[in-house]
Amino acid sequence: MSDSSSRSFSHLDDRGRAAMVDVSAKPVTRRVAEASCRFVCSPVTISRLHDLPKGDAVAVARVAGIQAAKRTADWIPLAHPLTLDEIAVDLERRPDHVLVRSRVVVTARTGAEMEALVACSAAALALYDMVKAIDRSASVTDLRLEAKSGGASGDYARGERG
Amino acid sequence: MSDSSSRSFSHLDDRGRAAMVDVSAKPVTRRVAEASCRFVCSPVTISRLHDLPKGDAVAVARVAGIQAAKRTADWIPLAHPLTLDEIAVDLERRPDHVLVRSRVVVTARTGAEMEALVACSAAALALYDMVKAIDRSASVTDLRLEAKSGGASGDYARGERG
Amino acid sequence: MSDSSSRSFSHLDDRGRAAMVDVSAKPVTRRVAEASCRFVCSPVTISRLHDLPKGDAVAVARVAGIQAAKRTADWIPLAHPLTLDEIAVDLERRPDHVLVRSRVVVTARTGAEMEALVACSAAALALYDMVKAIDRSASVTDLRLEAKSGGASGDYARGERG
Amino acid sequence: MSDSSSRSFSHLDDRGRAAMVDVSAKPVTRRVAEASCRFVCSPVTISRLHDLPKGDAVAVARVAGIQAAKRTADWIPLAHPLTLDEIAVDLERRPDHVLVRSRVVVTARTGAEMEALVACSAAALALYDMVKAIDRSASVTDLRLEAKSGGASGDYARGERG
Amino acid sequence: MSDSSSRSFSHLDDRGRAAMVDVSAKPVTRRVAEASCRFVCSPVTISRLHDLPKGDAVAVARVAGIQAAKRTADWIPLAHPLTLDEIAVDLERRPDHVLVRSRVVVTARTGAEMEALVACSAAALALYDMVKAIDRSASVTDLRLEAKSGGASGDYARGERG
Amino acid sequence: MSDSSSRSFSHLDDRGRAAMVDVSAKPVTRRVAEASCRFVCSPVTISRLHDLPKGDAVAVARVAGIQAAKRTADWIPLAHPLTLDEIAVDLERRPDHVLVRSRVVVTARTGAEMEALVACSAAALALYDMVKAIDRSASVTDLRLEAKSGGASGDYARGERG
Repeated sequence: MSDSSSRSFSHLDDRGRAAMVDVSAKPVTRRVAEASCRFVCSPVTISRLHDLPKGDAVAVARVAGIQAAKRTADWIPLAHPLTLDEIAVDLERRPDHVLVRSRVVVTARTGAEMEALVACSAAALALYDMVKAIDRSASVTDLRLEAKSGGASGDYARGERG
Repeated sequence: MSDSSSRSFSHLDDRGRAAMVDVSAKPVTRRVAEASCRFVCSPVTISRLHDLPKGDAVAVARVAGIQAAKRTADWIPLAHPLTLDEIAVDLERRPDHVLVRSRVVVTARTGAEMEALVACSAAALALYDMVKAIDRSASVTDLRLEAKSGGASGDYARGERG
Repeated sequence: MSDSSSRSFSHLDDRGRAAMVDVSAKPVTRRVAEASCRFVCSPVTISRLHDLPKGDAVAVARVAGIQAAKRTADWIPLAHPLTLDEIAVDLERRPDHVLVRSRVVVTARTGAEMEALVACSAAALALYDMVKAIDRSASVTDLRLEAKSGGASGDYARGERG
Repeated sequence: MSDSSSRSFSHLDDRGRAAMVDVSAKPVTRRVAEASCRFVCSPVTISRLHDLPKGDAVAVARVAGIQAAKRTADWIPLAHPLTLDEIAVDLERRPDHVLVRSRVVVTARTGAEMEALVACSAAALALYDMVKAIDRSASVTDLRLEAKSGGASGDYARGERG
Repeated sequence: MSDSSSRSFSHLDDRGRAAMVDVSAKPVTRRVAEASCRFVCSPVTISRLHDLPKGDAVAVARVAGIQAAKRTADWIPLAHPLTLDEIAVDLERRPDHVLVRSRVVVTARTGAEMEALVACSAAALALYDMVKAIDRSASVTDLRLEAKSGGASGDYARGERG
Repeated sequence: MSDSSSRSFSHLDDRGRAAMVDVSAKPVTRRVAEASCRFVCSPVTISRLHDLPKGDAVAVARVAGIQAAKRTADWIPLAHPLTLDEIAVDLERRPDHVLVRSRVVVTARTGAEMEALVACSAAALALYDMVKAIDRSASVTDLRLEAKSGGASGDYARGERG
C-alpha cells in the first residue's frame, strides 16, 4: 500500500488538475494489452445467438469493438491518441454468458490498456443493443485488464478468469 | 420464455442480417433511460479520489460519460442517432467502489437505453484511466439498464441495486 | 436544358459561395432514398467471398455502410446533419461483381440521398479493403441514386439497372 | 490464379473472422498511393461548374476529399489508423465528366491505398451533393487504385486511364 | 446585477456539477444565432489573400466553419446535439483584418449560439493555419455572439461592431 | 516584407489550391507549441466562477480544450493528423477575464501550433457555454500563438502578454 500511495494518479498534476501528461521522453516500444468482460444474459438469448444463420450479431459486436478501440482517445478524455498496430476481438459463447476478449498491439510511447478495455466494452454493449428486445436485464460484468507488456512500468498479468 | 422467443432480435432482419431498423412509423415521445455500473477498486484508491483538492477525477469522468453518450451511434453500430435532451452522470463514492449512474432523456421515435449504458461505461473507464498507475486491477462491473419509460414497448424497472 | 439551367446548384449561394442552405421553411416529411453501386472484381474473388465460413466480409461491409451513412454530414461538407430512421445495406454476389444497394429513411426537412450514396460507397470500399491483398485491381463503379421519394422536389426513379 | 488463391484475405483470420491484423513487425517506410474516379454528369453541369465565379464547388470537393482521407479508419472498419504526411486531391473538368485524382503519402507500417480511395470517393460525392438539384442522374464510376509504392508487397501501377 | 446573480450557470446543477441540462419541456421553435470575430493579420497577408487566383484560402476557411459548427457538441462538452437547418459563414477582407461572420438556424428546443461561435472560431483558425508560415503573429480577436432570436429567454442583439 | 513575401502560404500549392502538403521529408523531432487567449466577462461572472463548490466549470473547460486539441485535424481542414505527447490547459482567474493557456508537445514531422490554438479556443468557448445564461456579452479575445520550438523553421516567442 505504501508503494501504491507514493505513485501519482495518471493524468492529474500535483494540484489534482486534469492533463494529458507528457510522454515524449518515454521510449517507443512494442506494447500489448489484453482485456476481457462477460456479457451475462439468459440461456435463451445465448441459444438464439447460436442459431443465427450468418452469425451477424457476433460479427457486428466484433466490428463495434474494433471501431471503438480506434477511437479510444475520443471516449477517454485524457488518453493519448495512438495509431494501433493490431486489434482483435473474440466472442465465445458459454452456457450463461458471452466471454468477450480483446488484444491490442501498439508501437508507441504509452500502452494500449484503455484501447483493450474500450474494445470489450463496445463489443458487449453492441450485443446488448441487439438482444435488448428479448432480454432487457442482460448486463456487462467484470470488465478488466487481463495483461499488459512492453512498457516501462513492467509487465502485468492478472490471475486466470474462472 | 415463449413470450421472449417470439420477439425478434433488435436490429437483425429475418435472415439474421444487420440493419438499423425502420422506426419512422413509431410516435415521437419523451423517453427516459437510466443505467448504472460499479467501478470496483481498492479502498486506498477510493480514499485518494476523495482527497483530490479539486475533484477533477470525478469531473473528468462525468464529462467523459456525457460526451460519450452524445456519440453513442458511433460506438454502437446499429443504434439510431439521437439528439438528446438531457444527460446526467453521477458518481458516488462507496467504501469499495464508485457507483456510477446515468439518466438520459430524449424526445424521439426510439429510446435512449444504449446512451445511458454508454455514459456509465465511459465514465467508469475514464476513472480507470486515471487510477491505473496505482490500481491496475480495478474493474467495471454490473453495467446494466436500471429503468426506462416512455416507449411503445412499455416501462421497465429493474429491482433495487443493493 | 432550359429547365435545369434555371435551377441553382445546391449549397452555393448566388455568388458561388459554399453554404449549408436554410431548410427551416421546408415541411418535415418522411423521405426515402435508395442508391446502389457495383464492386467489380475477379471471379476468383467472388467465389472466395462465398466460401468464407461465417460471411464476415459481407457483414463487415454492411456495418461499414450503416456506420458511414450515420456520419454523412462529416464526409460531405455541405450536407445537413440528419437523425436517420432506417439504414439497410444489402450485398448480393453476381458472377463478376457484388451488387451493393442501400435504403435510407428519414423524417426531416431534407432528403437522405447523400446518406444512401455514402452507405454504398463505404460498403464497397470496405470490401476492397478486405480483398485488396488478392485482387488489387478491383473497382467500384456506377455509384448512383436509384430512387427518392417524399420531398418537395418530387419523386425520382432511375431506370432499371441492367 | 493459383498465386492469388494462396494469399489470404486482408483483415480476416483463418476462421474468416474480422480483425485489424497485426502490422507491428513490418518496417516503417515511406509509402505512396494514388487513386482516381470519374464523376459523370451532363455537359450542362460541367459547363456550369466552369462558370462559377469563385470555383467554390471544386474547392469544397477538394476539402471533402482531404478531410475524409484523414478519417479513413472511421469509414473502413478494419483499416489501420494512419497519420498521413500528404494528401492532394485534384479535379479536372473533361467534356462529360470530372476526373478526380488523389495522392496520399504516409510513413508507416502499412500503406494508404484506402485513404487514396476514400479521398476520391468523398470528393466525387461532395460534387454530387452540389449538383444534385440540377443533375440527379450524375454518378461516380471507375473508383480504383492507380498506383502504390513503398510497401513490402511490391509496387503496383495500373494501366493508363483512357 | 441582482438580476443576473439570480440566474444559474447553464449546465451546472445546484451543487456545481456538470450536466447536459434537460430541455425536453421547452417548445420546439425556429432559432437563429449570429456570431463574429476578427482575424487580425498584417496588410501583406491581407493583400496576398486577395491575390490568390482561386480564392481557395477563403473557401477552405468557410468550409472549416461549416463543418465545425455541425460538430459543436463534440467541441463543447455540455452543448446539446442539434440538427442544424442552415449554416452560413462569410469572410470579408478589411485593411488590417478579415471579418468573419456566421449565421446558424435551427428548429429545436435550444438555441445555436455555440454553433455560431464555433463556426467563426474554426474559420478564423483555418485562416491562421494557411498563413502561419508568413505571418505567425496573426491572431483571432473579439469572438462574440452578435444576435440571437427565437428562444424562450428572449431576443438579443449586441451593439454594432465598429 | 520581402522576406515574408517570398514564402508561400502553408497548405496552398502554387496555383492556390488547397492541399495537405507533403511533410514526409522533414525530420521527426520533439516540438512544443504554446498558445493563449482571454475569456473576457463581467466581474460578477468571474466571482461566481470562483464560488463554485467543486470548480467544475474550470474542469469542464480544461477537458474541452484537451479533447478538442486531439481532434484538431477534424476542425482545421488542411492540418496534418498528429498523435500528441502532451496537452496541458490552464485557466487562471483575473479581475475581468480568465486567462487561458495551453501547451502541446508532439514528436512528429510538423508542429502543433494549431493544436495549441484549438485547445485555447475550445476551453474558452466551453466557459462561454456555461456562463451564457448570466453573461451573454462575454467574448474570447487575443487568441494567439505564444511560442513554438523544435521545428525546422526556427523557434518563435511572442512578447510577454500584459
